[in-house]
Amino acid sequence: MCQLLGMNANVPTDVMFSFAGLATRADEHKDGFGIAFFEDRGLRHFIDHHGARSSPVAELVKRYPIKSDNVIAHIRKATQGRVRLENTHPFVRELWGRYWVFAHNGDLKGYAPRLHGAFRPVGDTDSERAFCWLMQELAKAHASVPSVEELSCTLRELLPQPAAHGTFNMLLSNGQALWAHCSTQLHALQRRHPFGAAHLADEDLSVDFAPLTTANDRVLIVATQPLTHGEAWAALQPGEMQVYVDGETVAAGPCRG
Amino acid sequence: MCQLLGMNANVPTDVMFSFAGLATRADEHKDGFGIAFFEDRGLRHFIDHHGARSSPVAELVKRYPIKSDNVIAHIRKATQGRVRLENTHPFVRELWGRYWVFAHNGDLKGYAPRLHGAFRPVGDTDSERAFCWLMQELAKAHASVPSVEELSCTLRELLPQPAAHGTFNMLLSNGQALWAHCSTQLHALQRRHPFGAAHLADEDLSVDFAPLTTANDRVLIVATQPLTHGEAWAALQPGEMQVYVDGETVAAGPCRG
Repeated sequence: MCQLLGMNANVPTDVMFSFAGLATRADEHKDGFGIAFFEDRGLRHFIDHHGARSSPVAELVKRYPIKSDNVIAHIRKATQGRVRLENTHPFVRELWGRYWVFAHNGDLKGYAPRLHGAFRPVGDTDSERAFCWLMQELAKAHASVPSVEELSCTLRELLPQPAAHGTFNMLLSNGQALWAHCSTQLHALQRRHPFGAAHLADEDLSVDFAPLTTANDRVLIVATQPLTHGEAWAALQPGEMQVYVDGETVAAGPCRG
Repeated sequence: MCQLLGMNANVPTDVMFSFAGLATRADEHKDGFGIAFFEDRGLRHFIDHHGARSSPVAELVKRYPIKSDNVIAHIRKATQGRVRLENTHPFVRELWGRYWVFAHNGDLKGYAPRLHGAFRPVGDTDSERAFCWLMQELAKAHASVPSVEELSCTLRELLPQPAAHGTFNMLLSNGQALWAHCSTQLHALQRRHPFGAAHLADEDLSVDFAPLTTANDRVLIVATQPLTHGEAWAALQPGEMQVYVDGETVAAGPCRG
């Protein structure tokens, strides 16, 4: 099964420790990996259809302290779609002058939404179809750039539709917020003052965040499985959507119905 | 001034030698670099708003033999738009289920095309505005994916419009063809059987292509300035557009007027 990793922070933060934790799970996930880093409106996007264990691109990401406020990473175990570069998550599109990044864990059976708009899949995965449909429906629902609250209301209506076709754990970001939808498994953790040490669940690697952080830093990590021992990971519930901004969970506001 | 590099080949070919030649020109171009590699429909896109001399991403690209049939690279000297990641060429959009990649050398004065369609700039460069306008107009001109010949006819009509606002040397690719438009300077070179040795113009680096190639290989290189000594680079003329497919120049066919 694929592995998802998302990060949302109130200050640009490097994700090397968590990505190293994710990459150790790559042995059984040889079908590619990808990671996208927002720097304000800009985006760095690294993908490879070679496994994260052997990819020089993954090696770069593990060693290069790219600091970002919104990150989405994915390690792929192909269920639908061939092992090809164009099928590697995360996927990127532009809408309203912002890049949007999407990664999916799961499997949608017989999912063929009507795509009549400006967003078409380049590859042949159910995941990219779902992303294109979400972008199309967001574009239809709002004439110009909505607020994060408005977007969250629209997404809360849209996400159950692809989710009805199977398993739809997903991460979505436009650089302002990180949206997470849980179908079967997704875990979240907030790191904030006082920062302590964390130990990777799968590897003999620890980091003490205290000297690397200030009292105001807040970092939210979402992953398929908890990446560390000794930290308070919380499981999202099936059907739950969460919105993260500046390293905090944003409470669901009232949505017009 | 910015440096452009494009490659179009009939077999996936690595571009390390030419990129090394380009990167040596990066001392005066500290405002970022980017390179995009098609692998069939898939795309790898590496950008950095740090100079190509110091960027770990450029280091990866110089060492990692990514083989591609269509490549566009750009080294930036900012004229319009700040030195930021979102202003770093090449730019990418999706249209008709294909990625499109664009890089520009030059400066468009007072260029504010009407962008009412599905393509909006994320950054604030004249270049990304021109790219979004081209994508919008291509989308308007064709209901679904046209042939390379039809696209070339439409581009031949469109390209003079941004070019009328200043200097518009540009490279565009959708993974099937490479389009080059010259305003002031752009040089092209075809390498084919019998392959010989080439020596980089700016650096003490040579390569003998003969043992690396077969008799059927054809590679077309386009660059702002000739990158090598002793090869027959041809200058494109002001106002000229060229189309390259499978390492060959495609003759302009009759366009319906």
